[in-house]
Amino acid sequence: MADKLAIGIDIGGTKIAAGVVDEDGHILARLRRETPTTDPLEVIEAISSITEEFRRDHHIAALGVGAAGFVDASQSTVLFAPHLAWRNEPLRDSVARRTGLPVMVDNDANASGWAEWRFGAAQGEADLVLITLGTGIGGAIVIDGQPYRGQFGIAGEFGHMQVVPNGRQCECGNTGCWEQYASGRVLMRRARAAAEEGTELGLKMLAEAGGIDRIEGSLVTQQAKAGDVEAIEWIAEVGDWLGVGIANLAAALDPGMFVIGGGVSDAGDLLIGPARAAFSRTLTGRGYRAEARIVRAHLGPEAGLIGAADMARLTARRRRPANPGARARVRAAAKSSRSPRRRK
Amino acid sequence: MADKLAIGIDIGGTKIAAGVVDEDGHILARLRRETPTTDPLEVIEAISSITEEFRRDHHIAALGVGAAGFVDASQSTVLFAPHLAWRNEPLRDSVARRTGLPVMVDNDANASGWAEWRFGAAQGEADLVLITLGTGIGGAIVIDGQPYRGQFGIAGEFGHMQVVPNGRQCECGNTGCWEQYASGRVLMRRARAAAEEGTELGLKMLAEAGGIDRIEGSLVTQQAKAGDVEAIEWIAEVGDWLGVGIANLAAALDPGMFVIGGGVSDAGDLLIGPARAAFSRTLTGRGYRAEARIVRAHLGPEAGLIGAADMARLTARRRRPANPGARARVRAAAKSSRSPRRRK
Repeated sequence: MADKLAIGIDIGGTKIAAGVVDEDGHILARLRRETPTTDPLEVIEAISSITEEFRRDHHIAALGVGAAGFVDASQSTVLFAPHLAWRNEPLRDSVARRTGLPVMVDNDANASGWAEWRFGAAQGEADLVLITLGTGIGGAIVIDGQPYRGQFGIAGEFGHMQVVPNGRQCECGNTGCWEQYASGRVLMRRARAAAEEGTELGLKMLAEAGGIDRIEGSLVTQQAKAGDVEAIEWIAEVGDWLGVGIANLAAALDPGMFVIGGGVSDAGDLLIGPARAAFSRTLTGRGYRAEARIVRAHLGPEAGLIGAADMARLTARRRRPANPGARARVRAAAKSSRSPRRRK
Repeated sequence: MADKLAIGIDIGGTKIAAGVVDEDGHILARLRRETPTTDPLEVIEAISSITEEFRRDHHIAALGVGAAGFVDASQSTVLFAPHLAWRNEPLRDSVARRTGLPVMVDNDANASGWAEWRFGAAQGEADLVLITLGTGIGGAIVIDGQPYRGQFGIAGEFGHMQVVPNGRQCECGNTGCWEQYASGRVLMRRARAAAEEGTELGLKMLAEAGGIDRIEGSLVTQQAKAGDVEAIEWIAEVGDWLGVGIANLAAALDPGMFVIGGGVSDAGDLLIGPARAAFSRTLTGRGYRAEARIVRAHLGPEAGLIGAADMARLTARRRRPANPGARARVRAAAKSSRSPRRRK
C-alpha cells in the first residue's frame, strides 16, 4: 500500500488544482489554490504547502505536475509556456528539493492522455490520440502503452498544424493553425462579435455574462444545449473542422481511437456528431480500411491531475535503484488490468 | 551465416525489382522483371521464378515484399493498391506457399523507411519520419526502433493530409491533399502545361521527351540542375509546400529527423533548401525548441527492397518457435550496430 498514492498537480492559467490519486486513478482528496501561476516561485510555494497538507493524512510516493506548455523530453523543465509566461523553468528539481519527493513534469495534455488511456475512454486500446479543445487545441499520443513525446518532448501540438494557407492569425505567430478553426476561442470570438452586433443569440449571451468581455465559449455550448439553432450551427462548424483535422491525423498516425476532451467537448454529440461526419467524408482510403472511433473523454477536467499522478508514481518506481526487479513488476502491474491489443 | 540472407522485392507500377540482401543491408545480387503488376497471379509467378533463380547461388532465409498500397497490420494482405488495382490480396500466404519461405509484406514506404533507419540517413536516430516524393507522397514512421504502422496498418499516408480546403482535386477523391502541391505529379503537370503553352522551358522539355505525354517530373529536375531559372522556381515551390507539411508533422510527431526520399529528392538542395526555409518559418514554438533535421535519403530507389528484405529476415527469426531465445538475440543484434538515443 505504501507506494500506491501519488499527488497530481494541474497548473492552469489562474489556478492550481491538486489531488491525491490512488493506483486505480481514483482521487482520494482534493485541494485548489487561486495562485498567480505566472510566477514560478509562487507556484512552487503553493505546491509545497499542498504537499504538506496532503501528507498529514496520506503516505505519498511521488508527485506529478501537468503544465500547459512545452516540457522537455526528460520531464523536468518547462521550456516554453505562453499562458504562464515561463521560460526554461526547471520545475522538477525545484519541486523535488522543496518536497523531497520524486517529481515528474509533463505537458498537461500528455497527462490527460495518459489518464484516458489508463482509466478512461481508451482502456483496452493499444494506442490513443487525445485532442483537447479548450481555449486552443492540445494533444497527446500514446503508442503501445507508452506516452509518445517525440525527440524534444513536444509531440502532440496538433493545434498548430496549418489547415488554411494564409488563414486566420494565430497567437503562435503563424497563420491558419487548426486551433483558430476548432477551439473554445473560436466560439468565444463569434459569441462576442454577435453580442456587439446585437443579434438575438448575442444579446442572450450578453445578458447571461453581464459584459462582452465576460462572454466565454462555454456560453455557446449552454445555448446550443438549450436548443438555440444558431449556437448549434456554430458548434457544428467547429465539429466539422475537428473532423477534417482528425482525418489528417488518421492519415499520418492511423490510431484505433481518437478521444476528444477539453471544455468544448461538453457539447457532446453536438460537437462529436459533425466531427464524425466530416472525418468519414474526408478520410483517405475510406471503404478500404477500418475507421478509427471518435469518442468523448471520460475523465473530465480532472484527467490532467490523475494522469500526472499516475505517470509520476510509475516513473518513481522504475527509477528506484535498490530494487532491480521493480521495473518488470511495474510493467506487469500496468498491464495486469488491461490487455492491450497486440499487433499480429 | 545460414540465416543472414533475405530476398527483397519491390513491386512498382510496371516492374518488379528484386535483390538478395545481407544483414548489413548490402545487395549481393539483383533481378528485374517487366511484369504487368496489375495481375497478382503474374506477380506471384514472377516472385516464384526470381526466388528460384536466387536460390541457385544463395541460401535464403526469408522473403520481404514492399508494395505500393495499404497493407494490413499483420503484414500479410494488400488491402488496397490503387496503382496496382489490387483489392484484399492475400499476398503473403500465396508467396509463402509457392516459395516455402517465411514471407512478410509491407507498404513500400514503410520498407524504405526501415532501410533508411537501419542502414541509411537515420542511423543513430531513435525515431524517423520518411517522406517519399514520387508521383505522390508516401511516408513511414519509425519510433524507438520499431516501424510504426498504426492500428490498421495504414499509418504514414502523409500525402493525403489536407493542406488547402477545397483545394486541388486528388485521385483519392478528396481535395487539397498535400501530394497535389508537393510531388512529382505537380512538376509533371506544370511541365506538360508549359509544353502546351509553348514556353521556352516547355519546348526544351518537349524536345527532350519527344511528346507531351512523355514529359515526366524528372525532366524538370534535369532542367533545374542545368540552371534553368523557371525550373528551379518550380522545384522551390514544391520544396516550400514540403516544408509547410513537415512543420505540420513536426507539430504532431516531433521527431529528431525527417528523411526525404523518392524521385523528386534527386533535386537535392534545390528541393531541400526551400523545404528547410519553409519549415523554420512555419514551425510552431520556433526558438524554444530544438529543430528536427531535414536530410535527403541515402539509399536511393533500392531502399524499398533492402528494407523489405531486412524486415522479413528479422520477423522470420522472431517467429521461429523452436528457438525461444531468438527474439532477444535478434533484438540485441538489431541494436548492436547502433545505439539509439534513449529518452531520459
